[in-house]
Amino acid sequence: MSASTSAAPCELCTTPGGHVVWRGEGWRVIRAADELFPAFYRLILDRHVAELSDLSPEDQARCLALLVAVERALRQQLRPTKINLAAFGNMVPHLHWHVIARFSWDSHFPQPVWGTAQRSVQPPAVQRLSCTLDQLDAAVAAALEAA
Amino acid sequence: MSASTSAAPCELCTTPGGHVVWRGEGWRVIRAADELFPAFYRLILDRHVAELSDLSPEDQARCLALLVAVERALRQQLRPTKINLAAFGNMVPHLHWHVIARFSWDSHFPQPVWGTAQRSVQPPAVQRLSCTLDQLDAAVAAALEAA
Repeated sequence: MSASTSAAPCELCTTPGGHVVWRGEGWRVIRAADELFPAFYRLILDRHVAELSDLSPEDQARCLALLVAVERALRQQLRPTKINLAAFGNMVPHLHWHVIARFSWDSHFPQPVWGTAQRSVQPPAVQRLSCTLDQLDAAVAAALEAA
Repeated sequence: MSASTSAAPCELCTTPGGHVVWRGEGWRVIRAADELFPAFYRLILDRHVAELSDLSPEDQARCLALLVAVERALRQQLRPTKINLAAFGNMVPHLHWHVIARFSWDSHFPQPVWGTAQRSVQPPAVQRLSCTLDQLDAAVAAALEAA
């Protein structure tokens, strides 16, 4: 069921996968370094499991609670136009969820961040957020800790 | 919090949004008509709600159970390379989840279906599936009914 056909080690097994914002039992949340989408977080399962349906019902429920916690923190801090959630894993078949705050002014809106750019954004996106990334990380971590 | 700034009615409030495969209390599942990705389903909330975190914990749990049911049916019937899950709603801010069976041979793999095509596929993707779409729809509906 794995998409990987090479012997290369999984990068989410061997590296944090980004700037670690929170670690809990079996899961971590990182912030991606994306200039166009600064409020781009990933919820990553520590174990190497490909699909949501491979998890036990308890682990699925925990995944949902953590996803909702990140989403809520982003909404409360940033008042985004929309939250985008996605779990693909086509390149890295190790369960991870993208949680992205999207804004009507961002470079790709209303396209997905994996789609076609619609406009250039100046000043840079990070300067348009209503708080700093440090404040955002702290709010996300606090929400996860309470989840 | 709505992304819609026009007075146009929401298309997921006024139309089924695709070929209806299953209807349950508060939710429906449709199959999108996508030649490149024939095993492309959407789980749609009947009510007009934008974000997962707007739902009650009970409705969030139901959403998860239904998502997992669709994912499991697609995996069992098709043995895909990967399942892709996504909730964007940038264009239609009415909660709906994309559940897509992806294959290493498909037109965009390993890119998301919203990304850049990687190859042309002949014979057409639907002919490469290990069952018919009618059989697939029936398996998805049965899994949802049991969820």
